[in-house]
Amino acid sequence: MIVDTKKYKEFCRQALILSGLKEEAAEAVADCCVMTDMFGITTHGTVNLPKYLNKMRAGGLDGQSTPIVITEGPTWVRLSGNGGFGMYNGRYAMDLAMKKASEMGMAIVTVSDSGHFGACSCYSVYAAEKGYLALAMSNTNKLMCVPGGKGNIIGNAPISYALPRQGQHPIFMDIALSQVAKLKVVQYQKEGKKVPDGWVVDENGLPTNDPQGNNFSMSPMSAHKGYCLAFLVETLTTVLSGGSFDIRSWLFSPPETQSNLGHTMLVIDVNKMMDPMQFASRLEEYTRAIVDAPKALGSDKIFYPGEPNWLSYDKAVQEGLQLPEATEAAARQLAEMTGLDLEACTI
Amino acid sequence: MIVDTKKYKEFCRQALILSGLKEEAAEAVADCCVMTDMFGITTHGTVNLPKYLNKMRAGGLDGQSTPIVITEGPTWVRLSGNGGFGMYNGRYAMDLAMKKASEMGMAIVTVSDSGHFGACSCYSVYAAEKGYLALAMSNTNKLMCVPGGKGNIIGNAPISYALPRQGQHPIFMDIALSQVAKLKVVQYQKEGKKVPDGWVVDENGLPTNDPQGNNFSMSPMSAHKGYCLAFLVETLTTVLSGGSFDIRSWLFSPPETQSNLGHTMLVIDVNKMMDPMQFASRLEEYTRAIVDAPKALGSDKIFYPGEPNWLSYDKAVQEGLQLPEATEAAARQLAEMTGLDLEACTI
Repeated sequence: MIVDTKKYKEFCRQALILSGLKEEAAEAVADCCVMTDMFGITTHGTVNLPKYLNKMRAGGLDGQSTPIVITEGPTWVRLSGNGGFGMYNGRYAMDLAMKKASEMGMAIVTVSDSGHFGACSCYSVYAAEKGYLALAMSNTNKLMCVPGGKGNIIGNAPISYALPRQGQHPIFMDIALSQVAKLKVVQYQKEGKKVPDGWVVDENGLPTNDPQGNNFSMSPMSAHKGYCLAFLVETLTTVLSGGSFDIRSWLFSPPETQSNLGHTMLVIDVNKMMDPMQFASRLEEYTRAIVDAPKALGSDKIFYPGEPNWLSYDKAVQEGLQLPEATEAAARQLAEMTGLDLEACTI
Repeated sequence: MIVDTKKYKEFCRQALILSGLKEEAAEAVADCCVMTDMFGITTHGTVNLPKYLNKMRAGGLDGQSTPIVITEGPTWVRLSGNGGFGMYNGRYAMDLAMKKASEMGMAIVTVSDSGHFGACSCYSVYAAEKGYLALAMSNTNKLMCVPGGKGNIIGNAPISYALPRQGQHPIFMDIALSQVAKLKVVQYQKEGKKVPDGWVVDENGLPTNDPQGNNFSMSPMSAHKGYCLAFLVETLTTVLSGGSFDIRSWLFSPPETQSNLGHTMLVIDVNKMMDPMQFASRLEEYTRAIVDAPKALGSDKIFYPGEPNWLSYDKAVQEGLQLPEATEAAARQLAEMTGLDLEACTI
């Protein structure tokens, strides 16, 4: 199924409102999830909407809550996400961070007691499109091993940044600090395929290509380097947010369970530090030097960070968004639950 | 040779002053380089002092300069390093960042036109010991490849963070975003050893274990993830600093050449955002949960980030600092150049 992106976003937004989310939350969740699908990160997009709603109905997510300010200063806010949807809390936090940064030059906003916020780039790119250099990160339940250990010891520390440009898509990164996302391993398991070297360790903390059931842990990227970077991300999202250390998988824990997730947004108003045109032209010059560099044998392109996602995004805008099988099934579920017409979104 | 760390630092400081550095610069350079040796990062320590002085005498480094403020706001400063020593400029920048952060909660200070600043942890740990959460990073000359490219396209983006603790050594990371530091490859070449998989690519952008002369480029950690992270580090250190894009190797370019390096310090005064005892106790609880986690088969310890370096540091404090052969040779060169008594530093 191929859908018109604007109609599909409106379909999702209305489905969320009809399911009990307040308008601001529905807008944020729909915008983030459709944007994520358009970026080609379909594991983190609208495929998850029925699961979020299931969790909400079970009491593990609140569709009506508003974030609460715990403490605030010239360059910082600590928010409680108040058990609400991660996308709503994340956008709310990023809006506050941009406001503070526009006054002071930079700002950090943390969120505790939140839900799954999907792909980090939904927040960083959102800010970069408004002219800010932004980082967005989240903790997760423990699903990654660390050097010398066995089992799930640390989260995989999803982190994103985005850089503002003039009249062009922001440059951005959206990664987890495990070698790959856990959902990819689950997908390989479903398909009965062995996973490549370096993705996971077994129940003894030793490398394996054949993870059994849930008896595996993700390996950090580049061993101690990924471990150390994840430690920083969790210090900012867990320790500094003031949130719970008892973070539950939004996907695998019982739906009535609060996820207790924490997010952190860090924003720099680069246009205060440097003339906007100067920053933009310097960034273009820097980017050009990289993408125009000589190509490897057998390669014909060097991408700037985020460019593959923008190619997917632009294709979706122009030709419509191709829904993967699981996403289409989720969308049909939404239509059934709400009586909305999914077919009207097709191109 | 085993030296007393305090005497050795004083020896280095005096040698630098006698060689023409102003006092503040000599203090910063000696402190950073001896600290780095004590951390066990001996490739970036006092072994380089004669090379720095050689560069200074050739006109590629200024031992008398002071950083200049280009522009400044409540949470930011852009400095010109004014051709001076990287360690002096780096500590100067970090002092400013801490001052701004203590007023506003957080701050960013960039430095352009600087020299090699050694190990990033000299700055982050320095700030964490004063109670701040700090990041320190630098650009480098192009010495790393990127996915799809060949040759040297991007720097290896050294980056460090440090987290303040109460009555204990700060937790810290000090890494480059290449799979390993270039100096390690040079060392392998000197010893005639093949380098492990994944360290470098050849002149066609293809992986090799046998890099020839300077005909190789470093590979980023975890391919596109390391590339994207390096892109951020260089945006902050090169684009945002306003510095030159023409960065020269401090080591391999002619000594009369300015290196044109850029550094960036980012500081958060966590004690403004949260009660200091609360931050400290939460960080300890978080750290404990990691280092006390079950160990892998064959492992008996999980280190917190930076712990191996602190073990080396504490050993140096207690038993003296064992100078590697190349470092001892450099120290003897300093003694010869200045008439100072290196033997008086031995234990």
